[in-house]
Amino acid sequence: MKPCTKAVVALGGNALEDKSLPPTAQSQLKVTERTAKYLAALSQAGYELALVHGNGPQVGRILLASETAADVTPPMPFDVCSAMSQGYIGYQLQQQLRKALEERGSRIPVVTVLTQVEVDGEDPAFRRPTKPIGAFYTEAQARELERTRGWTMREDAGRGWRRVVASPQPQRIVELDTIRRLWDSTITVACGGGGIPVLRTADGELEGVSAVIDKDLSAECLAEGTDADVLLILTEVENVCLNYGKPTQKALREVTPEEMERYAADGEFAEGSMLPKVQAAVRFAKSRPGRRAIITSLDRAVEAMAGKTGTVVQ
Amino acid sequence: MKPCTKAVVALGGNALEDKSLPPTAQSQLKVTERTAKYLAALSQAGYELALVHGNGPQVGRILLASETAADVTPPMPFDVCSAMSQGYIGYQLQQQLRKALEERGSRIPVVTVLTQVEVDGEDPAFRRPTKPIGAFYTEAQARELERTRGWTMREDAGRGWRRVVASPQPQRIVELDTIRRLWDSTITVACGGGGIPVLRTADGELEGVSAVIDKDLSAECLAEGTDADVLLILTEVENVCLNYGKPTQKALREVTPEEMERYAADGEFAEGSMLPKVQAAVRFAKSRPGRRAIITSLDRAVEAMAGKTGTVVQ
Repeated sequence: MKPCTKAVVALGGNALEDKSLPPTAQSQLKVTERTAKYLAALSQAGYELALVHGNGPQVGRILLASETAADVTPPMPFDVCSAMSQGYIGYQLQQQLRKALEERGSRIPVVTVLTQVEVDGEDPAFRRPTKPIGAFYTEAQARELERTRGWTMREDAGRGWRRVVASPQPQRIVELDTIRRLWDSTITVACGGGGIPVLRTADGELEGVSAVIDKDLSAECLAEGTDADVLLILTEVENVCLNYGKPTQKALREVTPEEMERYAADGEFAEGSMLPKVQAAVRFAKSRPGRRAIITSLDRAVEAMAGKTGTVVQ
Repeated sequence: MKPCTKAVVALGGNALEDKSLPPTAQSQLKVTERTAKYLAALSQAGYELALVHGNGPQVGRILLASETAADVTPPMPFDVCSAMSQGYIGYQLQQQLRKALEERGSRIPVVTVLTQVEVDGEDPAFRRPTKPIGAFYTEAQARELERTRGWTMREDAGRGWRRVVASPQPQRIVELDTIRRLWDSTITVACGGGGIPVLRTADGELEGVSAVIDKDLSAECLAEGTDADVLLILTEVENVCLNYGKPTQKALREVTPEEMERYAADGEFAEGSMLPKVQAAVRFAKSRPGRRAIITSLDRAVEAMAGKTGTVVQ
């Protein structure tokens, strides 16, 4: 191992939200404070970090407020809601992590860089939008929204109709140069919520688009682009498991990317949950020899980085 | 003049919003696109820039949506709304400025750094909140909000009751080190809306507070902190004027800070409008010999930097 290991850390939803608490900014701040303590421990263990967070519940509520108040103030497009969620979460994270580091005597600055992530307009995901966002509507309202706003609406498990957007692959991190430049001197929060999704138009200009980029895949993209040694994906479980939730459940410790791909093909991992994490891990481990992806829980991060637990894909 | 002049640019409300258009994110993007062309010209004229923008109308609408939807999703505290407005405006500004620079063959990165600005809990402004924010309420609703939320409510020019918050002085830019580090290689958008207002608690921790920091004063703070040569305050008029709007109106060209202070004491400048700009200009010009503050309009920025127009305080 090199003297200083660079790790891109992808934070799961549980790093920001405790489902037993009301979904307020105040309770999110409390959860973020706890998360920051684990991240500060990781920094003090000698790793150079960059952080990527999810934004699903937060951007959903921003969009919901915006749509609910549409008669009073114009609703915001989805790319702007995504940018606002980076502001919201990044602010709380940088504030709390700076505090946790200071408590340990560390003065390393923590900053959030608003990040646009380019996606490809030809990505097949745009032809098959799958990601539900925002409020629930009646069927009549849904049809009206399809007509007036051009949204794609889908019936959501008997709970009503919701807008669905595409979840395309991240192609390029627009602010990558700056994030690279900040590595040595700061802990940078970047690609929040997978990044603000932008397309390159025929004129070569960037333009916001309504889409959700998977934050684990954006974190992988960032890890490659910054030449990180480790992609550390933090979630609710200590290890990725085979036969998850069954009596035959088996935790995975060290796995090759090829083995992981076979398990994925066998349908071992839940779509929209463990599967994108596994895909991101495999992609990173295969991108260059020596690169390592780790999937574990927040409270095990330090031990997992030291090789003592977690699922390591290499 | 040194070979490369460093300028902190404070953008007025008209750089982001055209009051003849509906207040949507789409029309703001159009105005931002036009603003970006002027800023790109400034960059190409050889100046190193950092940008500070206002957020009054934007944070007002974010807060309004949040309060209007309070029955559906928990309302956001003001500091979080401020952070969200930095996400919204910073995203559009970095996207459009990057485009305008690329059109001129420049590849300089543009990034937004989420910025917290520390204020003093003992600032007298907290004892006399003056800045109206968010929705209008009836008197009965206002009394209820005073009771339940602890807000200070004020009757607003016969239009109804509104929440008022303090407008304290900026004391310290929390992310200053990083913004300084980014100077040479990027155009950084920072201290948006005057910065996310934070207080230092008795424990030495930073904590968000409901307050509005004047963006011209925060830009001044940033200009001092980054050791800029020029504080360039862009607004709707080409020059600061005496007897503004009267037949005897007289444009100011070159003024000493002491002269400017006398004019201000004589009540020449409107509070909440030209006065804070003049105060910021005077403060910067007095902070060190050789430092120059310029107040002019966006479309005259290049000429003003070359000494051909604008009001120069030095």
